[in-house]
Amino acid sequence: MAGNSYGKLFTVTTFGESHGTSIGGIIDGCPSGLVLDFEKIQQELNRRKPGQSEIVTQRKEPDTVEFLSGIFEGITTGTPIAFHIKNTNQKSKDYSHIKDVYRPSHADYTYDQKFGVRDYRGGGRSSARETASRVVAGAIAKQLLTDIKITAYTSSVGSIELLKPYQDLNFEEIENNDVRCPDAELAQQMKDKIKAIRKEGDTIGGTVSCVIQNVPVGLGEPVFDKLHAELGKAMLSINAVKGFEYGSGFQGTKMKGSEHNDLFNNDGSTKTNNSGGIQGGISNGMDIYFKVAFKPVATVIQKQDALDANGNIVEMQGKGRHDPCVVPRAVPIVEAMAALVIADFILLRRQESKSW
Amino acid sequence: MAGNSYGKLFTVTTFGESHGTSIGGIIDGCPSGLVLDFEKIQQELNRRKPGQSEIVTQRKEPDTVEFLSGIFEGITTGTPIAFHIKNTNQKSKDYSHIKDVYRPSHADYTYDQKFGVRDYRGGGRSSARETASRVVAGAIAKQLLTDIKITAYTSSVGSIELLKPYQDLNFEEIENNDVRCPDAELAQQMKDKIKAIRKEGDTIGGTVSCVIQNVPVGLGEPVFDKLHAELGKAMLSINAVKGFEYGSGFQGTKMKGSEHNDLFNNDGSTKTNNSGGIQGGISNGMDIYFKVAFKPVATVIQKQDALDANGNIVEMQGKGRHDPCVVPRAVPIVEAMAALVIADFILLRRQESKSW
Amino acid sequence: MAGNSYGKLFTVTTFGESHGTSIGGIIDGCPSGLVLDFEKIQQELNRRKPGQSEIVTQRKEPDTVEFLSGIFEGITTGTPIAFHIKNTNQKSKDYSHIKDVYRPSHADYTYDQKFGVRDYRGGGRSSARETASRVVAGAIAKQLLTDIKITAYTSSVGSIELLKPYQDLNFEEIENNDVRCPDAELAQQMKDKIKAIRKEGDTIGGTVSCVIQNVPVGLGEPVFDKLHAELGKAMLSINAVKGFEYGSGFQGTKMKGSEHNDLFNNDGSTKTNNSGGIQGGISNGMDIYFKVAFKPVATVIQKQDALDANGNIVEMQGKGRHDPCVVPRAVPIVEAMAALVIADFILLRRQESKSW
Amino acid sequence: MAGNSYGKLFTVTTFGESHGTSIGGIIDGCPSGLVLDFEKIQQELNRRKPGQSEIVTQRKEPDTVEFLSGIFEGITTGTPIAFHIKNTNQKSKDYSHIKDVYRPSHADYTYDQKFGVRDYRGGGRSSARETASRVVAGAIAKQLLTDIKITAYTSSVGSIELLKPYQDLNFEEIENNDVRCPDAELAQQMKDKIKAIRKEGDTIGGTVSCVIQNVPVGLGEPVFDKLHAELGKAMLSINAVKGFEYGSGFQGTKMKGSEHNDLFNNDGSTKTNNSGGIQGGISNGMDIYFKVAFKPVATVIQKQDALDANGNIVEMQGKGRHDPCVVPRAVPIVEAMAALVIADFILLRRQESKSW
Repeated sequence: MAGNSYGKLFTVTTFGESHGTSIGGIIDGCPSGLVLDFEKIQQELNRRKPGQSEIVTQRKEPDTVEFLSGIFEGITTGTPIAFHIKNTNQKSKDYSHIKDVYRPSHADYTYDQKFGVRDYRGGGRSSARETASRVVAGAIAKQLLTDIKITAYTSSVGSIELLKPYQDLNFEEIENNDVRCPDAELAQQMKDKIKAIRKEGDTIGGTVSCVIQNVPVGLGEPVFDKLHAELGKAMLSINAVKGFEYGSGFQGTKMKGSEHNDLFNNDGSTKTNNSGGIQGGISNGMDIYFKVAFKPVATVIQKQDALDANGNIVEMQGKGRHDPCVVPRAVPIVEAMAALVIADFILLRRQESKSW
Repeated sequence: MAGNSYGKLFTVTTFGESHGTSIGGIIDGCPSGLVLDFEKIQQELNRRKPGQSEIVTQRKEPDTVEFLSGIFEGITTGTPIAFHIKNTNQKSKDYSHIKDVYRPSHADYTYDQKFGVRDYRGGGRSSARETASRVVAGAIAKQLLTDIKITAYTSSVGSIELLKPYQDLNFEEIENNDVRCPDAELAQQMKDKIKAIRKEGDTIGGTVSCVIQNVPVGLGEPVFDKLHAELGKAMLSINAVKGFEYGSGFQGTKMKGSEHNDLFNNDGSTKTNNSGGIQGGISNGMDIYFKVAFKPVATVIQKQDALDANGNIVEMQGKGRHDPCVVPRAVPIVEAMAALVIADFILLRRQESKSW
Repeated sequence: MAGNSYGKLFTVTTFGESHGTSIGGIIDGCPSGLVLDFEKIQQELNRRKPGQSEIVTQRKEPDTVEFLSGIFEGITTGTPIAFHIKNTNQKSKDYSHIKDVYRPSHADYTYDQKFGVRDYRGGGRSSARETASRVVAGAIAKQLLTDIKITAYTSSVGSIELLKPYQDLNFEEIENNDVRCPDAELAQQMKDKIKAIRKEGDTIGGTVSCVIQNVPVGLGEPVFDKLHAELGKAMLSINAVKGFEYGSGFQGTKMKGSEHNDLFNNDGSTKTNNSGGIQGGISNGMDIYFKVAFKPVATVIQKQDALDANGNIVEMQGKGRHDPCVVPRAVPIVEAMAALVIADFILLRRQESKSW
Repeated sequence: MAGNSYGKLFTVTTFGESHGTSIGGIIDGCPSGLVLDFEKIQQELNRRKPGQSEIVTQRKEPDTVEFLSGIFEGITTGTPIAFHIKNTNQKSKDYSHIKDVYRPSHADYTYDQKFGVRDYRGGGRSSARETASRVVAGAIAKQLLTDIKITAYTSSVGSIELLKPYQDLNFEEIENNDVRCPDAELAQQMKDKIKAIRKEGDTIGGTVSCVIQNVPVGLGEPVFDKLHAELGKAMLSINAVKGFEYGSGFQGTKMKGSEHNDLFNNDGSTKTNNSGGIQGGISNGMDIYFKVAFKPVATVIQKQDALDANGNIVEMQGKGRHDPCVVPRAVPIVEAMAALVIADFILLRRQESKSW
């Protein structure tokens, strides 16, 4: 019941603190017989890892995943797949200044209040480093979903927004720039913005959009475990996420039903897709698309008031190596969580049947 | 694993179709010894029920809940609380015209594709009638949460938006108008809008905002079952919901970290509350607030193209008694789901402890 | 988390007290498209119901099941199947003598200590009446399992034991006598024993054996959810059960490995079946067989010391209409729980696959 | 849903194959603030480890546990506790003779049929080596349960049975002999028996009894998750277990109700304890006691017919270093599983309450 597992049939449980021995997880329920492409798994990790470009944190962590079980001669055996990533670049001293201090808008205060014990080094369990484990699990989920294409990209940095609908974008451009925005010109503006913000010692928020293509009809388990409800939960569970919308989203609230309704083609596809590929909580075969809001990183390299354990307000100078904007590194995390959600629903779908 | 249960310790499972014998549910895990106020439960149902005002569907359903178990002499016994609400105003004939037709942007097509069998009467299981069961369970959850105040209200209808922060609102005004908007003037505009839309035979979307006050610090189970992730899932599981944001939400993505960070007061409270009462997925004792986006109702009383089971596009004239805007009746549903989420986390929190 | 649900994909949640309005349940996860034979469901209930023969309790309860949802035109729709059975023969006055008294070896004391509130009428939730709901769910599960044959029978009453292996029995004899023992001669002895015991105002224990035939290879989810572990839990969850063994069981502990090992035939079947159809927690295609121990019913129609709520020992005269031996009526309950276990593992098995 | 997790609030998920990199697990839900005694954890592992005496397998594995997360400065932080034990004495070549062969009464055949992929080395995931992870988790659970005493011991080896009730035994004798039988004389007979059996190249079964003392009233979650049902499942999930009985068990089926009923003392305790400390699925405060049946180990050092992957019967000569009787090493495993069950129910119990 502790909340470190995700998924019902394809279940990942993660462990690990930012500055502990290692982080990792167990995938229970991965079907057997899957020939793993380990290079692809590492590639996904590399998309998330620190130090990958000039606009992300300059920590150097190789983030090499080691598998401990569940794989025999490169093939999944149907037993739990355990893996871990060693923490090699732990500069715990970087954090000695926050040992007795709660940083504003971090999880320091709430973790301490909840658990009464606090691994203060690098945020401990609340560090976004935990998401590396999700990326590993998601990379394996992606390999299950051979026909389904999951593509995330940066759709805004601060007020710089990519307004084009995803259909007008060239997804092949995404990895061609450090921001992971498929529009080269906007990507440059975003990059400049991030660099300027970093210079100020500040941070900035942004959004990641995601498109899931070639999804079979029938995924989702109403009434509570609707497909978009699980996607929403999965996205909201990522560090720094503040909002989620799919299909027409918040904008759709301003529309009339007669405008919003997606009229059918003869084959069951629809002429428009305000539904975002999901109707009644179940995929309808159209593209699923959604947007995820990320707040600005709380660690700023400026003087800020913080609270100490004795209830005193103390001035704190942010240190450490942090991202001025999480969005570029969040792109593979969004994809990973989407893959976990879809893989789980695919397995759930398999055991349903119309004929007995 | 079928998705008709919500909650881990305070678990509600709902059943029932719009035009079946009855709808209802089982609450498993409600603590014993709770003296129930049945009138309050019925009041919540009345806030949701059809026919309550001139701007909602004019179906007449008394929606009287009957309890079958788990209560002895008015007190919960710790055993499963089963309840049901009879379907008394079933005009199944109203739906004979859609027997072989999939209405656009309804769940007709996806349910039929998923299950291969379809109770087409009134949307069957996908009807928002199911939410009455949620309101019953939520009303009981509210009675557990004696110190916690959950208040939802209409914050927009179409483009008419209530922009004031919730702190500037008088929540006592909410039930004084049919729209459930705490600003009387805007409420009137919203009502006029809904009436105009209905006249067109059309529908309109809107948003519901919700504030949860007096929440203890420590609720939420990272890393996956963060408090806002569960709130998001719960809200997204409500019919017609397209988006969820909490705290600074999507707007927060445009802010800098230095602006967004909530600086502490000496007592652990914060001077601002961009965090929306949740940090690192755990409640910090500040007010929790979030916004939920509802799309326009898909049933319009206009001619529309639909798809029949043979793949033909057929013209369909919307009939039946439907809401031109779901938002006024969604207010108690949002509260109910919020109560279910909070009750569950309260019970989870109880079994944690710092000292052994 | 409260324990009133069983099964992961084919999940039944039961509700109801012996003397409340009704008992019943919700089945969530029953596949759609199953054409239900309602008569067969009622037949299973009739095998469990009181008053069916001279050796069971003479309470008269029709135990007619009413379905509330999840079925359309006789076919399951894939949505939750809710059902209930009205309590029609409630003689709550029968229990006024135990209002403030804890009967020995009943659940009166533990329920009161656990919940602090007690529906004392007829044992409330702890009454074996609850098992009628399991029989309904099990009867539906049986209809899913068209190829699998589940047969339970009485294998002992007190010291009168059926020692023949199940292969030497004629299962068609089971329903030919009130005891449900497939050996007519022993059945008569058992019946005489039960009648003699009842005359004494006493009760007697016994065992039920169960054989599951035609099970596909591959059911069971090691390491914790082994097939026999779930069967064991399911059986131990039935009222009055004190033990469970499968295959060679307790007797097998006295054997040598060289004797106990089941040697293979060329087709993967085995020459002997000490394994009871399960190896490593997974079905191997051979018959599954197990035995369940039932203690004597605690209600005896004799004077017995009981405890009152004030800590006084008081003399109590057992009243009410009770079974002198639960075993004959337990036979369909054992089958129902077996069907629930197997149906759940069949669905789990469906989503596994060797090839991707 | 894959079955490698146990427990609802105190949840352990295990991973690892006999001859993989390592075995281990994650405990999610261990309360924070627990000061761990690492030496005690290792002691429990040492009671289970191979090579500890002359009557167990002579494999030499240090079985040193390494913790990766969830502990800070020796104290649990409330976050997932991951641990692993490296496999250091892997002689995979020992198993090359079974690469294409299914050994009788092992899990070789069923695993291969289920998963289509087989890590044949040392039984892979089906190896009892997995139970080392359970012992680690159980050792931590024991440290939570400071007031509760869990004691298992060998109660039979083949036909040599310890018939004395547990009250007449001196538990301090258990660890004084290699068999872990508290009766020194019987222990010697059992040891002689095991040595004789090993000389024959054969194996023998046995039983382990377990007593849980000082259990609070109120543990257990009827109707399905009864305390004894979960204990039964937990025990039956241990390798080689064939049966479980608690309290009067199978013997109790031969008793009359008037003999079997446990009459009360004034304080709610009972004069006898046929109930085995559990009534209606809920602990009543009396000692819980149960017995677990272990079959003889399937690996015999004799020639035996086996099946190869092509359906041929082939003669196989058992090799490797195996236990002639699992019972002595099973004692700490039974205790570990009992501790996991009780810890979970203690946490569940915490969130219940009579007063609101």
